[in-house]
Amino acid sequence: MSDLPGVAITGISGRMGQMLLATLKASGKARLVGAVERPGHGWLGQDLGEAMGGPALGVTVTDDPLEAFAKAQAVIDFTTPAATLGFAKIAAQARAVHVIGATGFTPEEIAALEPAARHSVQIRAGNMSLGVNLMTKLVKTVAEVLGDDWDIEVVEAHHNRKVDAPSGTALMLGKAAAEGRGVTLEEHSESGRHGITGARAQGAIGFSSIRGGDIVGEHDVIFAAPGERLVLRHIATDRVIFARGAVRAALWGIDKKPGQYDMIDVLGL
Amino acid sequence: MSDLPGVAITGISGRMGQMLLATLKASGKARLVGAVERPGHGWLGQDLGEAMGGPALGVTVTDDPLEAFAKAQAVIDFTTPAATLGFAKIAAQARAVHVIGATGFTPEEIAALEPAARHSVQIRAGNMSLGVNLMTKLVKTVAEVLGDDWDIEVVEAHHNRKVDAPSGTALMLGKAAAEGRGVTLEEHSESGRHGITGARAQGAIGFSSIRGGDIVGEHDVIFAAPGERLVLRHIATDRVIFARGAVRAALWGIDKKPGQYDMIDVLGL
Amino acid sequence: MSDLPGVAITGISGRMGQMLLATLKASGKARLVGAVERPGHGWLGQDLGEAMGGPALGVTVTDDPLEAFAKAQAVIDFTTPAATLGFAKIAAQARAVHVIGATGFTPEEIAALEPAARHSVQIRAGNMSLGVNLMTKLVKTVAEVLGDDWDIEVVEAHHNRKVDAPSGTALMLGKAAAEGRGVTLEEHSESGRHGITGARAQGAIGFSSIRGGDIVGEHDVIFAAPGERLVLRHIATDRVIFARGAVRAALWGIDKKPGQYDMIDVLGL
Amino acid sequence: MSDLPGVAITGISGRMGQMLLATLKASGKARLVGAVERPGHGWLGQDLGEAMGGPALGVTVTDDPLEAFAKAQAVIDFTTPAATLGFAKIAAQARAVHVIGATGFTPEEIAALEPAARHSVQIRAGNMSLGVNLMTKLVKTVAEVLGDDWDIEVVEAHHNRKVDAPSGTALMLGKAAAEGRGVTLEEHSESGRHGITGARAQGAIGFSSIRGGDIVGEHDVIFAAPGERLVLRHIATDRVIFARGAVRAALWGIDKKPGQYDMIDVLGL
Repeated sequence: MSDLPGVAITGISGRMGQMLLATLKASGKARLVGAVERPGHGWLGQDLGEAMGGPALGVTVTDDPLEAFAKAQAVIDFTTPAATLGFAKIAAQARAVHVIGATGFTPEEIAALEPAARHSVQIRAGNMSLGVNLMTKLVKTVAEVLGDDWDIEVVEAHHNRKVDAPSGTALMLGKAAAEGRGVTLEEHSESGRHGITGARAQGAIGFSSIRGGDIVGEHDVIFAAPGERLVLRHIATDRVIFARGAVRAALWGIDKKPGQYDMIDVLGL
Repeated sequence: MSDLPGVAITGISGRMGQMLLATLKASGKARLVGAVERPGHGWLGQDLGEAMGGPALGVTVTDDPLEAFAKAQAVIDFTTPAATLGFAKIAAQARAVHVIGATGFTPEEIAALEPAARHSVQIRAGNMSLGVNLMTKLVKTVAEVLGDDWDIEVVEAHHNRKVDAPSGTALMLGKAAAEGRGVTLEEHSESGRHGITGARAQGAIGFSSIRGGDIVGEHDVIFAAPGERLVLRHIATDRVIFARGAVRAALWGIDKKPGQYDMIDVLGL
Repeated sequence: MSDLPGVAITGISGRMGQMLLATLKASGKARLVGAVERPGHGWLGQDLGEAMGGPALGVTVTDDPLEAFAKAQAVIDFTTPAATLGFAKIAAQARAVHVIGATGFTPEEIAALEPAARHSVQIRAGNMSLGVNLMTKLVKTVAEVLGDDWDIEVVEAHHNRKVDAPSGTALMLGKAAAEGRGVTLEEHSESGRHGITGARAQGAIGFSSIRGGDIVGEHDVIFAAPGERLVLRHIATDRVIFARGAVRAALWGIDKKPGQYDMIDVLGL
Repeated sequence: MSDLPGVAITGISGRMGQMLLATLKASGKARLVGAVERPGHGWLGQDLGEAMGGPALGVTVTDDPLEAFAKAQAVIDFTTPAATLGFAKIAAQARAVHVIGATGFTPEEIAALEPAARHSVQIRAGNMSLGVNLMTKLVKTVAEVLGDDWDIEVVEAHHNRKVDAPSGTALMLGKAAAEGRGVTLEEHSESGRHGITGARAQGAIGFSSIRGGDIVGEHDVIFAAPGERLVLRHIATDRVIFARGAVRAALWGIDKKPGQYDMIDVLGL
C-alpha cells in the first residue's frame, strides 16, 4: 500500500475535489499524500478525514501547495485557470505531474502554462473522460478515411440549464472532423438550421443541440452517405468519469518526460 | 376476387401512382378499376398493364376522371392541390371515397374542398404513414399527461437535399405536443439554437434538424425530465409506407358517412 | 405551508426512504408528518432532522406505524412485501392512502392486500416512474391499433450486475403489447435468440437484453413494419424518478374512494 | 472517358450485377468493358444495353470470362464460391484485379483462392460496405485502448426473414473486439440471454439480435463503463453500399502488387 504513487489534490473540499478523492481510493492504484485548500478555508490544519466528518486519513489540509506537492508524484487540479497558473509553477518546482481539469483558459493563460512544462509533465484536456477523448481521435480518423460524400453531423444533448450551443465538446469533435478532412471548422460549420436553409452544403459539418431534463452530456458524430451511416456516440451519465480520467492521467504521467500532453497522449493513440 | 372493392388511381404513370398500384395489388384487399392520367399523356386509351410494358390488366388509362371514378368505391389521389380540387368534385359526384395525398394546400384550397365532402368521404393527411399519424396522436396524449417539467424536444433527420427546417412532419408533431399542453406552438417553439442561447425556457418545444445522406425521414419527440426520458421515434425507410397508408384509408372510408377525415380517424383513435 | 397534505414515510433511514424525503420536500406540495423505522433502530425517538445530522424537522422517528399514519393523509412505503402487508392494515385503520413501492409479491401476498383496500386507497406498481407507466399504456394502445404485420421487439439495457433477463419492466411492456393484440405473452414470447433460429414467427414479441456498465434502465419497444418503425423508448438515469412517482401517487390518492389502483390510474389514462 | 479504367462484371443480369453496373456508371471513375453470364443465358451474344431493354452500351454479354477479363483492369464478381474459384484463375491469367463479394467460402475454398493471388490482386470481404469495414477497424482499436472494465455488447437488427443470429457482421465485429483485447471470441462470447443468467461475466462480449420488418442491417458495438458509454453504430439502409465498396476496391487494386487483400487494406488503415 505504502509504495503506491502519492497524489495531491487541490480544492479538496469542493464537489470535484471530493469526487477525485473517492475515485483515487476506489482505483487502488494511488494514495492521497496532499490536500490543498485556499487560504482561510475552515478545513486548513485539520486531518482531511476528520474535516469530512469521518475517521482520520493521515493527511493534513494545507494552503501551502509546495508542502503538499513536494510529497506527491502527481497533482490533480480541477480549480480555475487563475489558480492553475500558480499551481503549475509549484508543480514544476516539485517535479510533480500536473493534471489540469479547468477549462476556459484564454490564449494568454495557455501560453503562461508553457514554462512550467519544461520541468514537469503537464496534462491538460477540455474533457477528461476516456470515452470522449478516444471518440475525438476516432472522429479524426474516420473523417480522414471517408470522402466528403459522407455528410458529417454533430448532435449533442445536455440539461436544460446549459446556456450555450453547441457544447464545447461538440466543437472539439467538429474540429477533429475538420482536421481529418484537412479543412477548418470555421469555414465549414453549419449550425442553427431554421426556415428555408437550402440544401446542405457539400462538405459542411452540421451541429444540432438538444436541451432537456438533467442530461449530463451526449454526443453523436454522424457520417451519412447514400445507403449507410456510421455513428460514433458518447453518453456520459455521471461526472465521475472526469475524475477517473484525471487519475489515469496522473498515473500515466509519472514516468514521462517533462512537456505538455493531452488525454490523447494518455490513451496512447 | 371480383367482389373486392374497386379503386381508381390518379396520376397512374407517376412514381407515386405506380407505387400505389403495386401496393394495392400486394394488399390483396382491393382491385384496380380505374386509372387516370392528364390529357395528352402517352398512355391514354391503352390498357394500363400493356402501357407499363407487361401483360394486360383490363383497365384502360383515361383522362376522364368521372369515367374512372364511377366504377370505383374509392379514389386514391396523390397529384397536386390544383388537380385535387377538380377530382374532389368528381369523386363527390361518383359518391367515391377520395383519399388525398397531396400537400401544400393553401387555406383557400382547403376551404374549397369542403363542399365535395358533403357528398363523399374525403380523407386527407400531410403524411399518410400509419406510424407517423399514430405517433402524432401519442405525442398529444403524452403532452397532456406530463407536466411542463418534462421538456419537449423534436429532433428530425432527412436527406441532404431537403431545403427547409424543421420538416413539416416535425411541425405537425410539435403542434400536437402544444395542443396536448393547451398552448400554441407559435409562442413556445425554440429552434435553431446557436451561440449564447441562455437556459432553456420552461415550457419550450425545441426543434433540431439533422441533414445527411439519403435519410428518408426520422422523427424523435423527446420528453425529458430529471432522471428519465420518454422518447417516441418514427423511422421511415421506404416511401411505400405512404402508399400503404392511402390504401388502408381507402378501404376504411368505404362504409363511412360523407365528411372530412384524417388518418387519425382512419386509425380509429 | 401548514395546509399542505401530510405524508408519512416508512423505512425513513434507508436509501429509498431518504430519497422519498428529499423528493417530498422538493415537490413543495406535501409535508412530512410521520417517519417510521423498524423496532430497535437507532433513530427511534429522535427528531428525524437531528438523527440525519442536520437541523430539527419536528417529526419524531417512531416504530409505531399507527401513531405516524394517524396524522397523515398518505403513506409512502417502499419496504418489503412482508412489512407492507402489516402497513396495509394500519393504513386502512388510519384511512390513509397507501402507496406501495415494494416488488416481488407472491400471488398470496397480493390477495392478502385486498381487505385493507376496502377501507383505504391502495396504489401499487412494479415500477413507479411516470415515464414507464405511461409508456406501458402507450404500448398497449399501439399494439391494439397496428396489425401483426408490425413486428414487436422489446429491447432493454441494464447494469452488469443484473442477474435476470429480460427485466421485469420489459416483461410488463411485453405483456401490455400482448394485451393490446388480444393474445398472451406466454404463447408469443421470443427470447434469447442464438444460432439457427429460423425466420421470425409472425406475431412474436421478441426480447433482447443488453448488459453493461452501470446503466440504470433503458427500455425500447420497437414496432417494425416494411418501410417504417415506431419506437417507444424510456431511459431512466436516476432512481429518484421512482420517488417522484410515489409522491405524485400519494397526492393523487387523497380524494379517491377506497380501492386498489395502479400508476395507470394515477396518470388518468 | 475512354481513358477511365475498364471493369468487367460477372453475373451481369442478376440483382447484384445490375446494381454494380449502375454504381459503376454513377461513379464516373470507371467504365464497363466486359459482362459475363453463365452458359445458356438468354443475354449471351447480345449488346448488354439492348438486352436490358435500353440503348446499346457497346459491350457484348459473353460466357467466356477470359474474353471479358482480358480487356479489363479489374473484375467485380458477386457470384458464388464455386464460380469465384474459376474466375480467380482467369483473373490471374488476365492480370486483372479480382474483387470477390461472395460469402460462405469453406476453409478449403479459401485455400484454393491463394494460387491465383500470386499473379493478381485479390480483394475479398464478408461485407463490402466502407462503413462496416471502417467500423470493424475502429472496434479493434477501441477494444485495445479500453480496459475490460468497459463491457462490450454487440447489438444487431435485421429483417424478420433472417434465419440466424447473431449476424455474420456482428460476429466479425465481436471478433475484432476480441482481437483488440488479445482474447478469443469463442471463450468470451455471451449470447441469447434468457432467465436467470447471473451477473455479466467480466470480459464478456455480449450479443443481442433484434428481428423485425425489413431492416437492411444495423450494428451497434457498445463499450459501457460506469458513468459513460462509447457506441459505434453502423446503419445500412440500401444494399447499393456493397456495390459502391466493390467499385472502390476495384479502383484501389489496379496499381497494387499481386496478393490477397481485404477492405481494411482498401481503406488504407
